[in-house]
Amino acid sequence: MTVHDRPRVVIVGAGFGGLWAARTLAASPVEVLLVDRNNYHTFLPLLYQIAAAELETEEIAYPTRSILRKLPNVHFLMADVKRVDLVARRVEGDGVVIPYDFLILALGSTSHFFGVPGAAQYAFPLRTLEQGIALRNHILSSCERVVHEPEADKRRRMLTFVIVGGGPTGVEFAGALAELIRGPLVKDYPLPDFQEVQVILLEAVDSLLPGLPERLRRYTLTRLRKMGVEVRLEARVSQVTALAVHLQDGTVIPTDTVVWTAGVRGDPAAKAWGLPTTQGGQVAVLHTLQVPNYPEVYIVGDLAYIEGGERPLPMVAPVAIQQGVRAARNIRRQLAGQDPLPFRYRDRGTMVTIGRNAAVSHLGGWACTGFLAWVLWLSVHLFNLIGFRNRLFVLINWAWDYFFFERAARLILPLGTARGSESVQSVSSKSGALQT
Amino acid sequence: MTVHDRPRVVIVGAGFGGLWAARTLAASPVEVLLVDRNNYHTFLPLLYQIAAAELETEEIAYPTRSILRKLPNVHFLMADVKRVDLVARRVEGDGVVIPYDFLILALGSTSHFFGVPGAAQYAFPLRTLEQGIALRNHILSSCERVVHEPEADKRRRMLTFVIVGGGPTGVEFAGALAELIRGPLVKDYPLPDFQEVQVILLEAVDSLLPGLPERLRRYTLTRLRKMGVEVRLEARVSQVTALAVHLQDGTVIPTDTVVWTAGVRGDPAAKAWGLPTTQGGQVAVLHTLQVPNYPEVYIVGDLAYIEGGERPLPMVAPVAIQQGVRAARNIRRQLAGQDPLPFRYRDRGTMVTIGRNAAVSHLGGWACTGFLAWVLWLSVHLFNLIGFRNRLFVLINWAWDYFFFERAARLILPLGTARGSESVQSVSSKSGALQT
Repeated sequence: MTVHDRPRVVIVGAGFGGLWAARTLAASPVEVLLVDRNNYHTFLPLLYQIAAAELETEEIAYPTRSILRKLPNVHFLMADVKRVDLVARRVEGDGVVIPYDFLILALGSTSHFFGVPGAAQYAFPLRTLEQGIALRNHILSSCERVVHEPEADKRRRMLTFVIVGGGPTGVEFAGALAELIRGPLVKDYPLPDFQEVQVILLEAVDSLLPGLPERLRRYTLTRLRKMGVEVRLEARVSQVTALAVHLQDGTVIPTDTVVWTAGVRGDPAAKAWGLPTTQGGQVAVLHTLQVPNYPEVYIVGDLAYIEGGERPLPMVAPVAIQQGVRAARNIRRQLAGQDPLPFRYRDRGTMVTIGRNAAVSHLGGWACTGFLAWVLWLSVHLFNLIGFRNRLFVLINWAWDYFFFERAARLILPLGTARGSESVQSVSSKSGALQT
Repeated sequence: MTVHDRPRVVIVGAGFGGLWAARTLAASPVEVLLVDRNNYHTFLPLLYQIAAAELETEEIAYPTRSILRKLPNVHFLMADVKRVDLVARRVEGDGVVIPYDFLILALGSTSHFFGVPGAAQYAFPLRTLEQGIALRNHILSSCERVVHEPEADKRRRMLTFVIVGGGPTGVEFAGALAELIRGPLVKDYPLPDFQEVQVILLEAVDSLLPGLPERLRRYTLTRLRKMGVEVRLEARVSQVTALAVHLQDGTVIPTDTVVWTAGVRGDPAAKAWGLPTTQGGQVAVLHTLQVPNYPEVYIVGDLAYIEGGERPLPMVAPVAIQQGVRAARNIRRQLAGQDPLPFRYRDRGTMVTIGRNAAVSHLGGWACTGFLAWVLWLSVHLFNLIGFRNRLFVLINWAWDYFFFERAARLILPLGTARGSESVQSVSSKSGALQT
């Protein structure tokens, strides 16, 4: 693995940034090694549908090797990178040491709890496949436990679901959760308690989806409330405990389930490896995406912070994809003796789905709501999924849910829970769901 | 939950026996409570396809509540039953105490290691959904680890897969595994080592599939060998270690993967709860499936051993289904003041698939092999799956695999491993697959 004639490009992270960088380097005179701790690429924009029991795990994930199969100069290594040595130019982890000529770090991001006490410990993050499954398990288990819980207070807490953060993920998950519980679940649990389910969405500022045009924000708010989501604006969380979420105005909402979608920060590994990071855990890079003083090292995706940019770029898939492509092209330019070019983000717009027949989209200055926006959202996400089979299965599942008011993916799978600061505790399979 | 006018039938276990008993009691003047530790019913005959990366978890499991939705007198409780008190007539577990008028125990079975040293600790059982996923994770992780393993001995061990037991499960899994590795995996790992993969099937007696006609047994053996499975007959395992499987004749086969399909015994909970059990962990019952001295308690499925029967019944789904129906009907007879009837097994035959276009079937004395048997096998299994959507997805996956020589379900999911005597250890998500 260390003998090579052509320059070697090591890419750490097989998310959107890393994968598109690898694809862009496919026909170039380099050896590419893509490293990830998982053997699959996750389509994170649909992760909330895993948590809402709409889609199955395999449908939003795709084996990385299969994606790369037809790219002869691109190889894959499943390994957990433990260290990057920028001076010696090598990546280390799981007993392997990989020297590189060029490095692209595409580590992505983790939840940002802004130091709110208890949030890292008790709130459910929603950033990885296993966190999505753990949240789904917790929600479905709560519904099962209600059935044999004698105390009314506890039953109420089990059926109160609080989502922190009124950005796209918070809005999408709140809508999907409301539809899950008020639709398919109520059918299956013929208990009066299920009429009292509460889905509460907390947003710190005075509007949902800040940044979108006023009309879309208003539509989103009205629509969510019509769906039975209790939206509380200017509600700032001061503490999360095992039994409640506390707001700065003194309100206490008893709940077993706090979902944290309020913040995102660069993967902490970057800091641990000695890279200079911003307050948000990102690595400051040049406009060319290169790390200052290390022209052979690029940062792309959620981890990248472009110094001196007009305003910080959103931490979303399109930015990561475009940066992955840019970094790859810049490496090709360097190899050809040319200067790397600065990254320019082409913002194609924003789409957020709320529920059945309801979404907002803001594309190229054109705002649209309702059924049309919803169909647009579905089409764009379906089109961008990797793999024909996955697209087919997602399409069938969506159609199924739509026509039969059902949810397909309702198993409480024997997984470790991912509650608490991205760390994973595990539960015994036999009674795990009931002990959580 | 304790107030009821109609007699209450409690059924423990939502496998084939328990589920069919519940369905049979649907229109009867009883309240039925079906209790299971999982919220889904698993279609175990296809479990080996989970382990062989052919099917996705959700496709062979179905939420129990949804199955029961249209049966108004049948309720479901997700709970881990910890104790059954036959004298006080109640079931206890997870903080609930459930009195019953009639009880049907359908606990099923676990792997039987026959006291072979190390087997319970190091071999992979294949009896539950999570064991299926854990085995798949282990196999796919082994293939990933080979890529960066410098020592040839270790690489060879990682690519040697030993299956113990030449019954239907062992044969089906050996065939599926050989096709997985020599087909889709070889395409994705362009390494010489992958040409040296060994799939070894060990059977203690002198034939595979004992009990089937000679012609079918011979066909199975020839076919498996043609597919590259190394079948060793009269190979008795004397020990399993972390690094090898030892045979009684002194042979040592270095391997990281021993799959145990050689034996099955009644769920040990029955013994722990004080029920009198046989050597095989089953509970001896009357011909009517009632427990001696407890006419209101029935045992069905793998846990039941009918005293004085001509020969022990196989521990398979059709027996469990027919016994579930019989127990339910006998309870109805008791309520009507009639005597319970003895159970009679209607053996419809055996089908075992070996691989692409290859299966054996023995139905009503009619033996058949090859493509026809294979199509029969596919049809029967598809028809018996629960849920139209599951059937559709399984059909698509099978067609996909068949036409594209692919395998659909190849994610190494963040699950606990189930290696070692049905117990579950857990791994950290971040590097779990590599530490297993």
